[in-house]
Amino acid sequence: MKILHSVRSVQKLTSQIRSEGKVIGFVPTMGYLHEGHLSLMRTARKKCNYLFVSIFVNPTQFGPNEDFSKYPRDFRRDRLLCEKEKVDFIFFPDSEKMYPENYSTYVEVHNITEILEGSHRPRHFRGVATIVLKLFNIIQPDFAVFGQKDAQQVAVIRKMVSDLNVNTKIIVNPTVREEDGLAMSSRNVYLNGKQRKDASVLYKALKYAERKILTPGYNRDLGFIKEQMGKLIKSRPTVTGVDYISFNREDNLQEVTSLKNFKKGRLLISLAVRFGKIRLIDNIVVSVNL
Amino acid sequence: MKILHSVRSVQKLTSQIRSEGKVIGFVPTMGYLHEGHLSLMRTARKKCNYLFVSIFVNPTQFGPNEDFSKYPRDFRRDRLLCEKEKVDFIFFPDSEKMYPENYSTYVEVHNITEILEGSHRPRHFRGVATIVLKLFNIIQPDFAVFGQKDAQQVAVIRKMVSDLNVNTKIIVNPTVREEDGLAMSSRNVYLNGKQRKDASVLYKALKYAERKILTPGYNRDLGFIKEQMGKLIKSRPTVTGVDYISFNREDNLQEVTSLKNFKKGRLLISLAVRFGKIRLIDNIVVSVNL
Repeated sequence: MKILHSVRSVQKLTSQIRSEGKVIGFVPTMGYLHEGHLSLMRTARKKCNYLFVSIFVNPTQFGPNEDFSKYPRDFRRDRLLCEKEKVDFIFFPDSEKMYPENYSTYVEVHNITEILEGSHRPRHFRGVATIVLKLFNIIQPDFAVFGQKDAQQVAVIRKMVSDLNVNTKIIVNPTVREEDGLAMSSRNVYLNGKQRKDASVLYKALKYAERKILTPGYNRDLGFIKEQMGKLIKSRPTVTGVDYISFNREDNLQEVTSLKNFKKGRLLISLAVRFGKIRLIDNIVVSVNL
Repeated sequence: MKILHSVRSVQKLTSQIRSEGKVIGFVPTMGYLHEGHLSLMRTARKKCNYLFVSIFVNPTQFGPNEDFSKYPRDFRRDRLLCEKEKVDFIFFPDSEKMYPENYSTYVEVHNITEILEGSHRPRHFRGVATIVLKLFNIIQPDFAVFGQKDAQQVAVIRKMVSDLNVNTKIIVNPTVREEDGLAMSSRNVYLNGKQRKDASVLYKALKYAERKILTPGYNRDLGFIKEQMGKLIKSRPTVTGVDYISFNREDNLQEVTSLKNFKKGRLLISLAVRFGKIRLIDNIVVSVNL
């Protein structure tokens, strides 16, 4: 396994690999790897000749009052984990190499970026789309693997790839969860004991909604289900706020306010909940066929 | 020579070519080809195994009151000219294939897009950057050739390519001119006899400025030179307005108001002039070394 820092040398390397007709798989990460990331690497490893992982805490996707500087980092541990997963190359650039002085180009994916996470994190998806496109241009992957946990990120990247004709296939892996259902996230490390215990309520609330929606004969009033989910979440003492609970079409993220207008298809149920300064997101997708 | 319409099939073809280690050269155009375009093709032809030309009048770079629908088109003639230049593939897509319903992704290059042409054509460079990136993702060229006539376009594309780490080399060809100095442009076809004759004043004004700047001992007052250029241009009866005459650093387009602050480097002198509804642009670059 090699660790690469320079944009130019990676691009030269990946151009060479592509010119030999070999397949490049890519897993972009912000490091502090957990089982969720490792599952992405295992999926990618099976489908490519060369597996690239990037580790880069991308400043442009953090808001001014967010946790960029405090975001957990541990490169030594990440490197060992990548080695175990038989990663070929880690791309580990400096921030100044990715965003040099006078950097001024951004990718804007309109419509699906203003809702859900976007409404609480105004420039987040501009930063995500921009860094993902930059990384794709550097790594030149045949495919890249993302986690379903960031469902809106997946929708934004799929839309960008389709609109800009990016020649990279997007593969999405299911969310990896702890035993009590908490979705794996680098940010879970911020939780104290009580918050960690209470955080399992997010998945419980999502599964509650799924059960209700799939129950035959149930009236499937999404407003009522949302209310019950909110009550369940707020019953945990360390929860300090619910940013949103939302039902959306999985493909274009259009809000679904009633199942009367959505009898068949993939319904994304997503939420964002605060535990003090810590903000967690989670989601599930329900196949509706009424 | 083959004519290709489908994004997917071009991308498959260019991926195949790249995987064989062959070099792809690319000349993006809006068609209605003239000697300027042909010079770009000749430059590209010498440096690649496969030469792609795109012909696409890109709607997103036209303002609502501009000449998109009237922009001259003649595919039969263009095809013959490409054939003569030994082009291998013409990419000639439909607008609905490039911008399908619900299209929503744009590339924004800030700072250098708001001045000069950008201040008169508000979303022009957003459209240019977006279509060029899309075409690059489809054609996957090793290099692309642009004309110096659109100097700000060149600066915007260079900035985008650098910021987004696009793996395509940008080559710029000198402006090709008619005998009287008028820069070749598809829009010259709009000019009537009198306007056509008067239009030669643009290059004359640019060369006047160059002479003054390069004259030893001349006070090199850019304000005065600009004033004289304006007078010279407005002396032609069919000129109805001067949108701008401007002195800028060639690399980052920062305005140069006085040669006291710019003793050495490449100085872009550019202008936009209206002849009734017809708007022409031109520029030269002067190597200053005082």
